[in-house]
Amino acid sequence: MTQKPSRNLTIAEVRLTPVLISDPPLLNVHGVHQPYTPRLVVEIVTEDGVTGIGETYGDTKYLDIARPYAELLPGHSIADFNGLAALAQQVGIDEARVEDAVDVGGLRGIQTADKLRLSVFSAFEVACLDALGKVQGLPVHALLGGKVRDTVEYSAYLFYRWAEHPDGAGERDSWGEAVDPAGIVAQARRFVDDYGFTSFKLKGGVFPPAEEIAAIKALAEAFPGHPLRLDPNGGWSPETSLKVAAELADVLEYLEDPTSGTANMAEVSAAVKGAGSRGAGGRQEGVLLATNMCVTTVPEIREAFLTDAVQVVLSDHHYWGGLHATRELAAICRTFGVGLSMHSNTHMGISLAAMTHVAATVPNLDYACDSHYPWQTDDVITARHVFTDGRLPVSGAPGLGVELDREKLAALHRRWLDDDGTMRDRDDAAAMRKGTGYEDWTGPVLPRW
Amino acid sequence: MTQKPSRNLTIAEVRLTPVLISDPPLLNVHGVHQPYTPRLVVEIVTEDGVTGIGETYGDTKYLDIARPYAELLPGHSIADFNGLAALAQQVGIDEARVEDAVDVGGLRGIQTADKLRLSVFSAFEVACLDALGKVQGLPVHALLGGKVRDTVEYSAYLFYRWAEHPDGAGERDSWGEAVDPAGIVAQARRFVDDYGFTSFKLKGGVFPPAEEIAAIKALAEAFPGHPLRLDPNGGWSPETSLKVAAELADVLEYLEDPTSGTANMAEVSAAVKGAGSRGAGGRQEGVLLATNMCVTTVPEIREAFLTDAVQVVLSDHHYWGGLHATRELAAICRTFGVGLSMHSNTHMGISLAAMTHVAATVPNLDYACDSHYPWQTDDVITARHVFTDGRLPVSGAPGLGVELDREKLAALHRRWLDDDGTMRDRDDAAAMRKGTGYEDWTGPVLPRW
Repeated sequence: MTQKPSRNLTIAEVRLTPVLISDPPLLNVHGVHQPYTPRLVVEIVTEDGVTGIGETYGDTKYLDIARPYAELLPGHSIADFNGLAALAQQVGIDEARVEDAVDVGGLRGIQTADKLRLSVFSAFEVACLDALGKVQGLPVHALLGGKVRDTVEYSAYLFYRWAEHPDGAGERDSWGEAVDPAGIVAQARRFVDDYGFTSFKLKGGVFPPAEEIAAIKALAEAFPGHPLRLDPNGGWSPETSLKVAAELADVLEYLEDPTSGTANMAEVSAAVKGAGSRGAGGRQEGVLLATNMCVTTVPEIREAFLTDAVQVVLSDHHYWGGLHATRELAAICRTFGVGLSMHSNTHMGISLAAMTHVAATVPNLDYACDSHYPWQTDDVITARHVFTDGRLPVSGAPGLGVELDREKLAALHRRWLDDDGTMRDRDDAAAMRKGTGYEDWTGPVLPRW
Repeated sequence: MTQKPSRNLTIAEVRLTPVLISDPPLLNVHGVHQPYTPRLVVEIVTEDGVTGIGETYGDTKYLDIARPYAELLPGHSIADFNGLAALAQQVGIDEARVEDAVDVGGLRGIQTADKLRLSVFSAFEVACLDALGKVQGLPVHALLGGKVRDTVEYSAYLFYRWAEHPDGAGERDSWGEAVDPAGIVAQARRFVDDYGFTSFKLKGGVFPPAEEIAAIKALAEAFPGHPLRLDPNGGWSPETSLKVAAELADVLEYLEDPTSGTANMAEVSAAVKGAGSRGAGGRQEGVLLATNMCVTTVPEIREAFLTDAVQVVLSDHHYWGGLHATRELAAICRTFGVGLSMHSNTHMGISLAAMTHVAATVPNLDYACDSHYPWQTDDVITARHVFTDGRLPVSGAPGLGVELDREKLAALHRRWLDDDGTMRDRDDAAAMRKGTGYEDWTGPVLPRW
């Protein structure tokens, strides 16, 4: 019953380090990934000298929030998550910049001031959890209530892609081109051989639907019985979505964001439902619709769930404001009988560690998580994560269980400093205009098909 | 960045102590409170000798779960909340006993095996939080993300009551009889004088609605502008509910469980809505309907929210399975624009401490919390909580901030041991048959009016 003296949890210093990490020429409905993409590394140091790390988007509009926010933190406790979240509300945001969603073409879903704040806050929350875990000798999952599984399953994230960036820009890799069913199957085969993934997601919306249907069917034939997903990032009309759903009903685990907006998703969902029979617990037995675009903020949940627009939500701790918020989203999905999967954008090993910890604690993680990680060869941690049988072990070390490699961090920051500004904001449409033969590309008018 | 050695969080021992605490002759739709009511005190001791405490219902069917559950815990970590919750699933429950809801006449809402498990688990979860906070030198609110307020407001819980129990049973108190508007106003006045409460809840369903309407109007006249609530525990038909709602529309903060079941509540809600104008965010501007009866488990949320049956949910960490689960409920309510208040049953200071900690961390705690605490003079903590201006301060001491008084605990346990069995299961209808002149009372056929 004795009270131990409280350890010092007060924040002494916050360090922000924007970096550029290499990204292959992966294609999507809006264009192509740039040779480099910006990320922000957050370090939070307590008065006792314990450092926690986090990672989030590094585009200018995130940095513009992170910098003034970081200045507010010294003197606050790393354990005061509610207070730190409330502090973020004090950071003013240029509304004009919020509206300007051209940069990633809306791939990240709705853009609101709150969502930007949450996306920034997520890195600080993860850094505080990392530091708190180190102080208390507990892994991050234990700070979130404890793991319910020892490994977390990820899916192979397949992309149509070019062999290299136009004009030889950026880094080279050995993956080669994948622009047809055979290329996608070969890519999937390597994912299986290298990492043991057993489920596959294809980023679609790149080629006419018939070609992408053919690719999914080729995957189904090459990997019979394996879970398959297709995600055209809202690129199709409801009519096209229904045609694809009908063609792929027997092989898809779920169809992700076939069309844009909750109303269109609800229209597709209702039609699919009408075609299939209704299962127990509010689930339909036909193709399930998943989203990481029309439900990326709390205000979007009510309409989507009430209209049964989606049956699976892909969580993302960056969008939702951290690991605690991700667990709340999971509870909401559980309550409403909506499935839960996990979304990923281009990220490094800090975020993958955070994803793995929170995924380990969520009982209703119904699907393998997405991760771009195999595409990212740049990292700022000392020991890269290694997928085995498509899974990552849940670390039992204090905090996140990853260590910052300061030399790597300095090198990637140097790349950011040296950049002339063209890579500091991700813009897949702009990348599509550079030496590709698509110099008049403006991004698609959705629906594209 | 150094890793501190992890402190020993392993459970060495669990102690369960059932007690009987005195309860005044408070009236409700089902009967009258017994002279004594059972509670269970849970102590969890770590291998380092740190003890955490929790409290829940002490009726036999809760003890029958708590005892085998306690045996499963040694060797587990006090921080592994998800694992400890999963362990509770291993405890078998006699389904016949679950169905037997006569004891409290359904006052605690639906009875399910899961809900019983959660009600038991809640005390263990609170005890683990208390112990973990003591180990880490953090108050429980800090383990829940940090307080967002320094005090928590409670409302005065007014009851129709007799001056004493029939046949002079139980303990005496100085409150006297309250069976009419004047008696209720006098009771309210004392609550204000003694504790500074500024909002009032009347437990109704005892007298014909006209009398209870008169009591609320008398309160409105005596305390103009103060928030007022009326709760007949589902005792009315939808028609009666609507009549009362119309009569009291101008003075009620909310009307709690006027009628039984989600369908009836939805019918009343829709009619009230039709009568009033629709506000922003899905809220109606007429009388709000609140519940702690038709939404007391996760499976009940979906229908209630989708049919707009309730606009306010009264959380209760006992029902929902602890403080983490209460925070999840709060997130769900926030997401769906449903207000949040807090329910209370007869309890002691351990549970009041737990209620105050979790209430302090919930941003959307929209209403003052209920508490029976002023009616309970028996306690097992060394220093009773003191309401000032109707509020309790949020403790900053490690853990819950309350200390077990072993002499008091032993005395109240002795009372439980000495009982002939009649008080060990709360049964308000049975109490109503003992020397009251209502010897043929079987509990009401609902709706009573």
